[in-house]
Amino acid sequence: MFNIDFEPIGRRGHCSGDQSLLESARQLDVDIVSICGGVGSCDRCKVQIITGAVSAPTLEEQAELSAHELKLGYRLACQTYPKSDVKLLVPPESLTAPQRTQVEGLKVDVTPEPAVVAVEAALTTPTLATPIPDDVNLWAALGLQMGTIDFSVQQNLSTRLRELNWKVCAALRGNEIIALGAPGTKWLGLAVDIGTTKIAAYLLDLESGNTLASKGLMNPQISYGEDLVTRIVAASKSPADAAKLQNLLTDALNQLTEGLCSESGADALNIVEAVVVGNTAIHHLFLRLPVKQLGLAPYTPSLSAAVDVKARELGLRFAPGAVVHLLPNVAGYVGADHIAMLLATRIAQAEKTTLAIDIGTNTELCLQHKGKLTSASCASGPAFEGAHIKFGMRAAPGAIEHALMENDRLEIQTIGGEAPIGICGSGLLDIVAQLRLNNVIDRHGRIGKHPSVNIDEGVTGFILAEREGQSPLVLTQKDVRELQLAKAAIRVGIQALAAAEGLTELDIDQVIIAGAFGTFIDVGSAITIGMLPPLPLERFTQVGNAAGTGARLALISISQRAEAKHIAELDGYIELASVPGFQRKFAEATYL
Amino acid sequence: MFNIDFEPIGRRGHCSGDQSLLESARQLDVDIVSICGGVGSCDRCKVQIITGAVSAPTLEEQAELSAHELKLGYRLACQTYPKSDVKLLVPPESLTAPQRTQVEGLKVDVTPEPAVVAVEAALTTPTLATPIPDDVNLWAALGLQMGTIDFSVQQNLSTRLRELNWKVCAALRGNEIIALGAPGTKWLGLAVDIGTTKIAAYLLDLESGNTLASKGLMNPQISYGEDLVTRIVAASKSPADAAKLQNLLTDALNQLTEGLCSESGADALNIVEAVVVGNTAIHHLFLRLPVKQLGLAPYTPSLSAAVDVKARELGLRFAPGAVVHLLPNVAGYVGADHIAMLLATRIAQAEKTTLAIDIGTNTELCLQHKGKLTSASCASGPAFEGAHIKFGMRAAPGAIEHALMENDRLEIQTIGGEAPIGICGSGLLDIVAQLRLNNVIDRHGRIGKHPSVNIDEGVTGFILAEREGQSPLVLTQKDVRELQLAKAAIRVGIQALAAAEGLTELDIDQVIIAGAFGTFIDVGSAITIGMLPPLPLERFTQVGNAAGTGARLALISISQRAEAKHIAELDGYIELASVPGFQRKFAEATYL
Repeated sequence: MFNIDFEPIGRRGHCSGDQSLLESARQLDVDIVSICGGVGSCDRCKVQIITGAVSAPTLEEQAELSAHELKLGYRLACQTYPKSDVKLLVPPESLTAPQRTQVEGLKVDVTPEPAVVAVEAALTTPTLATPIPDDVNLWAALGLQMGTIDFSVQQNLSTRLRELNWKVCAALRGNEIIALGAPGTKWLGLAVDIGTTKIAAYLLDLESGNTLASKGLMNPQISYGEDLVTRIVAASKSPADAAKLQNLLTDALNQLTEGLCSESGADALNIVEAVVVGNTAIHHLFLRLPVKQLGLAPYTPSLSAAVDVKARELGLRFAPGAVVHLLPNVAGYVGADHIAMLLATRIAQAEKTTLAIDIGTNTELCLQHKGKLTSASCASGPAFEGAHIKFGMRAAPGAIEHALMENDRLEIQTIGGEAPIGICGSGLLDIVAQLRLNNVIDRHGRIGKHPSVNIDEGVTGFILAEREGQSPLVLTQKDVRELQLAKAAIRVGIQALAAAEGLTELDIDQVIIAGAFGTFIDVGSAITIGMLPPLPLERFTQVGNAAGTGARLALISISQRAEAKHIAELDGYIELASVPGFQRKFAEATYL
Repeated sequence: MFNIDFEPIGRRGHCSGDQSLLESARQLDVDIVSICGGVGSCDRCKVQIITGAVSAPTLEEQAELSAHELKLGYRLACQTYPKSDVKLLVPPESLTAPQRTQVEGLKVDVTPEPAVVAVEAALTTPTLATPIPDDVNLWAALGLQMGTIDFSVQQNLSTRLRELNWKVCAALRGNEIIALGAPGTKWLGLAVDIGTTKIAAYLLDLESGNTLASKGLMNPQISYGEDLVTRIVAASKSPADAAKLQNLLTDALNQLTEGLCSESGADALNIVEAVVVGNTAIHHLFLRLPVKQLGLAPYTPSLSAAVDVKARELGLRFAPGAVVHLLPNVAGYVGADHIAMLLATRIAQAEKTTLAIDIGTNTELCLQHKGKLTSASCASGPAFEGAHIKFGMRAAPGAIEHALMENDRLEIQTIGGEAPIGICGSGLLDIVAQLRLNNVIDRHGRIGKHPSVNIDEGVTGFILAEREGQSPLVLTQKDVRELQLAKAAIRVGIQALAAAEGLTELDIDQVIIAGAFGTFIDVGSAITIGMLPPLPLERFTQVGNAAGTGARLALISISQRAEAKHIAELDGYIELASVPGFQRKFAEATYL
């Protein structure tokens, strides 16, 4: 057993020599990024050894790290094993937190019509002459036909009725009593959008429909890998990892709930319903459904229907009888979050031909034309989240988020105005767009001549910023290629949806861009690089976290929940890979 | 820590000096009887110290044990603490097992109409062209509208469908799929009658309604005390004890299930439904509902309605989605087992005025007159189970079960023909009846003159058998008094029910005696001592474990389950303590 000291966060602990530094980090709750799932094929778990002896660099490390980096003690945490006590530095870009998360979204504006309603009642005090059983007593006082009492409520019923001196406020869901409180209790609901990278949660008063507090958090599953496939593989291979992946979400939701409650002075035991949305893989991992079949063609969901699950079965610390409702999934890669987004954007009611798009590691699209909805999913990859990009990172302080070329010089802007440490998705779009507009990059994506272009160890790169004592921050030729693949995937999807309706993409009347990443991009840059079709800018709207808004709508209104079900039934699905000529169209779409 | 050796069963283990021998016994799973709950007020946990030093006799022990017994090393396990390694003997009458339990009952003869039915289906293999989600696929193949899939079934659905190569047999309960097996699976059901003292369990094939196996077991809660009140107090005082009392039942049911399955070559994972009946306190302890209010007037049940609980919420190892159905309770001391008994005896359909009676520690009665059902409960006490009777014991080998006085000499018969070690309930009735018929006991219950009557340490007793090296086995004056109280409680109940209908007990056309104890009693003796009314013997029927039969009926037929609900609604309840002149009537009923 060795002492491992993770700096600058100062986390220390004992780990054995047969645990990699990444495994040790997980054990000590140090959230180091791992995109490839710990096989040494990405360089995102890079750490710097300060003191102590470690195993020799593997072939993978020699491929991912430069000779200079290796000399400075940089190593991949997943490939390195301690051979003595070790002190190491985790660079900010290798940590999963903190990061900008997105909780704002469309305004929720429907008449509350919650699934759970409060009903107050004064019960009869039982006597020897009328020894009325407690359950019968309660239903009679509520003035209702006997229904079901949640088992956990029933297990506490007699004690609670006497504590409350026979005066209660029941939380009634359909014909089931799912919680019991003192008269005047305000029953609460939680709406949650679990993204691949981020989680957004909202605490609502069910009666008024008001949002009391909202909060964002990184999806802690990131420690298993940035992309879904890595998590699917981990959960499929090991039941222990499947359980861990579920527990990470449960813990995150409990933590978010605690924060939301303390912020708004509420009690988590008054939360009686939650609506949770996420993509199909996240949905399945959260419910601990098998995911193996999601990773293999034909990517079959285990569960597509909307479902109610008792919160206690998922380990959530709400009212013991609380229910978690999950919206329906459409396909293996078109999930409940997509349905929530469609619900929130009102696309089904739009009179014009409308495209809704949520850009991310996986990008979901939906085209509404003459009342018909068709969705598709494209594997745009994690480039927008910083993966596979030499200096890519997520939208955290120090990330280049915008760029503008003036007088042949690229001006950069970082999040928080801090010294640049990497490039986040919106910055990547701007940089490539600006370099393209100024012909530093040609339409094939080739980086040409410019004073800032240099070649280091055979790698062509555009220098974005010099950094003291370190190699400069560059955009590499490979980074441009990664972006071309990502944006082509999206563009082909848009074209395919339009073609399925006998339209061209120029016939699209409005484009709704949803999701955290979509909020921060410059639409002009996205058009310049050919990620989005060249429509007039006024046809685009950026709506923020629409999935979270959809979850809130479904939480406070059963009509909206029914509408979500209707949308899921209505929604046609196109498998892009089976579109004729897909490969050719994709290749064409890579042009800048 | 000392070594404690429990003989003759040979159980050994380490126990600390601050644990009583009873606590040590519990820890080592030696099932020593404790009626008073370990406070030294009964003598049922009597053990004999063979070697080793123990604490000095307490005042309680000096009251409960004779000087002779103390000299022989007899001690109360609950009062005695080890001071060295100890070897002790547990007499058979102090052990809770083995014992005669009753599983036979009325014949089950209804057309099977189970709540859970088997539906077979061949699903479509999903392809990229038709990537049909697994849940949609299953419902379509079953030819049913989408309903609910039990969460545990859903969690395994995708894996199971592929293992079974898309051919399945679903267990459908209403519109919920609660289990999934290979085509041809026979779904099984379990019917359980949990008595205060004994548990009877039956394994049934749901489709045919056939009983595949049946088994009895002692209720392991006995280690907490023979009567319900002791258990109610223990559970009310300590949540840990409440949990233990529930776990004891769960463990017993799992053990019974294992035995039933291995006997019939069945798999417990094919059990998809259970019907459980018991008195209200047992019902509540089994479901871990609060019981404190059952121990205090007005003895309010927490739950009276019939209820479905997932087996996994109770820790039962059936199919993970299996449901446990509990029949309704009527009052704090008229429970689901009474309803099951009424269902099985068909009392509601009887054309004559009929009394059904289940005699036990608590005796439940029901009178049907002109279609009207009225029930009552009498606290007959645990005398029939051997408690408060000097040499009382349960119906185990060596217990005197019958007696007959011939030529002024009382001939006794023991269970298994073994040397007499005590008196069980049916024996007690016979002995007192025979002594009364022969005027050894007068109508006030006073033991008079007879060669077998002697006075030992001021206690008058009738010697039943001499025992080598020990004091003789006697029926004491106090034993007769205990029986008088028990039988008077029952008789007053019968009279009150008849009076409520404007009848006398002689107007009762037929009497159905249900329950294990009732099976073995001599009805003539019961009439002689005045426990039952002096009706012609042909009006009496002894039907065995009718509650177990009722549970089986409710298990295999939803019509019968509905009938049980109907009986519970129909059943009027009389609180005997509130009957005018109860005290006087009770005093009169004590006469022999």
